[in-house]
Amino acid sequence: MARITDPDVLIMRAQQGDRRSLARLITLVENGGEIGERVLAELYPKTGKAWTTGLTGAPGAGKSTLTDRLITQARSAGAAVAVLAVDPSSPFSGGAILGDRVRMQDHVDDPDVYIRSMASRGHLGGISEATPRALTVLDAIGFPEILVETVGVGQAEVDIAGKADTTLVVVNPRWGDSVQAAKAGLLEIGDVFVVNKADRPGVDDTIRDLRQMLELGGERAWWPPIVPSIANTGEGVDDVWQAVQDHRRYLIESTRLEAERRSRLVDEIREAVGYAVRRRVRDRLDDDEWNQLIEEVWSRALDPWAAARRITALLAG
Amino acid sequence: MARITDPDVLIMRAQQGDRRSLARLITLVENGGEIGERVLAELYPKTGKAWTTGLTGAPGAGKSTLTDRLITQARSAGAAVAVLAVDPSSPFSGGAILGDRVRMQDHVDDPDVYIRSMASRGHLGGISEATPRALTVLDAIGFPEILVETVGVGQAEVDIAGKADTTLVVVNPRWGDSVQAAKAGLLEIGDVFVVNKADRPGVDDTIRDLRQMLELGGERAWWPPIVPSIANTGEGVDDVWQAVQDHRRYLIESTRLEAERRSRLVDEIREAVGYAVRRRVRDRLDDDEWNQLIEEVWSRALDPWAAARRITALLAG
Repeated sequence: MARITDPDVLIMRAQQGDRRSLARLITLVENGGEIGERVLAELYPKTGKAWTTGLTGAPGAGKSTLTDRLITQARSAGAAVAVLAVDPSSPFSGGAILGDRVRMQDHVDDPDVYIRSMASRGHLGGISEATPRALTVLDAIGFPEILVETVGVGQAEVDIAGKADTTLVVVNPRWGDSVQAAKAGLLEIGDVFVVNKADRPGVDDTIRDLRQMLELGGERAWWPPIVPSIANTGEGVDDVWQAVQDHRRYLIESTRLEAERRSRLVDEIREAVGYAVRRRVRDRLDDDEWNQLIEEVWSRALDPWAAARRITALLAG
Repeated sequence: MARITDPDVLIMRAQQGDRRSLARLITLVENGGEIGERVLAELYPKTGKAWTTGLTGAPGAGKSTLTDRLITQARSAGAAVAVLAVDPSSPFSGGAILGDRVRMQDHVDDPDVYIRSMASRGHLGGISEATPRALTVLDAIGFPEILVETVGVGQAEVDIAGKADTTLVVVNPRWGDSVQAAKAGLLEIGDVFVVNKADRPGVDDTIRDLRQMLELGGERAWWPPIVPSIANTGEGVDDVWQAVQDHRRYLIESTRLEAERRSRLVDEIREAVGYAVRRRVRDRLDDDEWNQLIEEVWSRALDPWAAARRITALLAG
């Protein structure tokens, strides 16, 4: 069968449930280019109905298993679920993350579950640029629940909060785990904290540590619940899902949802401008020219601000 | 007396020790514009000889008093000292920070000490843009020691590490202070940790907490010393200064200094490009136009990427 490339046909088919067309649409918007732009322009007006829940936390905390369980929770409430599994550190086709994905294949025969892995390779400007584009497609095509799971490494751990309505931070009852979460900046971004692998010793200590650290941050309108779970057996996962629903209700009833989504939108536009500028600089200044410019500044033949002006001048025309 | 505006005359006079000309040069480079650019171009080749020590930590930790004491340490080693006191949260002329500055006035009659407060108001693109420019002037004019003290609030706390050769993180022996430092991302950036106000109870606990949290980060080539001090009385300040010298020797002998300065330079150029782009967008898209664009996207009449392309197009020409 010839590959369909007409975006209108792809959109129609994806809306009818064709997974291959959906996958193709996501690839198109990830890759950028004129067709991708057209797809985004057509789909964006249809967005705003999905609830996006982000999962973050250190590798090994059990995020994939928890995601798998949350799919089941959402499905038993009747909602179609899309999962975006984001791994900035590894290429699409390999590694541990794909192993983790296998677990989610329990849902592979469910037509109302769609799972997509994203890796840094082959994207326009890395995963942070591709994620909001992919979310736009999934929202517009009609998934009321979207789960975004990030492999917790560096900045990507924190960035998820800028893309999700509810951010789950997953830790384990291990000495130092809550401090690690604090160091990674996760205390600031968590709307719900999950102490997963709660069959291991130290759960109460971890909950207490998290609570104390959160309290150090002073007053806040929403106090993130700290929920123990054992994703492996499914224990406590209903409480996690309930906490997500509580946070959702809080955002809607407090009218904070509009404020938060609006501020995310502004950030998104700013980021998109940043990516566009970087791409344009890269198009007009190759690696050799860039390195030569750095050398000139390093040797003090040129000052950094003059170098910046030269680069900025490249953006014109 | 008429105000001197010829940059060459200002540079000559500043090098001869005239503080008023030095202050004027810093103002010129902070304000940007063609004269500022000329000053930077002339001074930049003369830089690279100063050692920049940054001090960061929560408000009230005693950074100003410690800075004051470190001036004395550097002076007794014979070096001229410049202090850049950076307060992103308050205007130049007022508030607690100016009160703190008063303490440093012990050095006001010392011709080899120069103290400059910087605040967000009146600068080109905020303090982060102005700081490296001011540092360039101070370095080029011939201060071998530069202390940069930031009022610890938000991102500015962390940014200092990108401008300094040695970063001091100042905490107090107070329950939760080390965790606060961790949450603020200060564990990653500290080359030396100072537990100031060490006459209060809890010093050993704080040192132990810091050490444990640092150890969680895994192996590293430089283990930041954790030094207790009582800046009010001067006790332990010689140890703090010694730790700075140890770190300096480590960077030089391990040849990491060049790598670190080079990577800071690249960051600085990137940042400068970012500032230039933002300024150009601001010049060409006023607040009303910007808000209208956001409204269009919020109402989904326009998608965020199309908005970004419109903004990027403004940079051309």
